[in-house]
Amino acid sequence: MSSRYATVEVHSIFNKQIGKAQTIGEKESQQSYNDVFIPKLANGYNIALDVLGTRMDSFRFSTFIQDKMTVNFFIGGAYGFDREFLKKCDKTISLSELTYAHKIANIVLCEQIFRSLCILNNHPYHK
Amino acid sequence: MSSRYATVEVHSIFNKQIGKAQTIGEKESQQSYNDVFIPKLANGYNIALDVLGTRMDSFRFSTFIQDKMTVNFFIGGAYGFDREFLKKCDKTISLSELTYAHKIANIVLCEQIFRSLCILNNHPYHK
Repeated sequence: MSSRYATVEVHSIFNKQIGKAQTIGEKESQQSYNDVFIPKLANGYNIALDVLGTRMDSFRFSTFIQDKMTVNFFIGGAYGFDREFLKKCDKTISLSELTYAHKIANIVLCEQIFRSLCILNNHPYHK
Repeated sequence: MSSRYATVEVHSIFNKQIGKAQTIGEKESQQSYNDVFIPKLANGYNIALDVLGTRMDSFRFSTFIQDKMTVNFFIGGAYGFDREFLKKCDKTISLSELTYAHKIANIVLCEQIFRSLCILNNHPYHK
């Protein structure tokens, strides 16, 4: 249904390097995400998800992404992102004060994007 | 894995009455949830999920549920709960400022309960 309003793509970049780094520690995990994410920052408006980011309700979220042609969301691993990566992004958003597993954050984010498209296009899904 | 630490049961109570009520409006939807949830409030510590409830991080969530023998969580429909139901509960908690679909709230809540059990029992899942 969302394809009427926007193109939404989910790219899973989990690889062996990340898997191994996460068993070693925080710095290694964050570095492994930098290695794959930094080359992806070139185009569009880049939003990192981080528990210390800006919180907003679903309506504000929808207006926030409304006027942007291409928005890239980045979800970190078990240790989140380092400051270097967050500084390279245009904005950091928090989905919740609660910590979510990577896959849960992915599901929540997808539903918020879908909900936003419905809000912005007066589709009744959101209520 | 969580069965080592606690018994977790998920009860889905969605029925025809709720489905119909949600197509009519807010009051009807909330009433249909009251009809099925109020009889379930008898035992244990009752927590309603509502966007206007208390927000907490995963560690506070884990300590909050720690000392309670039986905790019941209630997730409302598209229109949430009415004040009457919230007053009958012991506590109202918000998972996020963002509005989640019922099924998304269920997934997020299950992971938080699992994460809490890991935090409280020093299992490395949560980090």
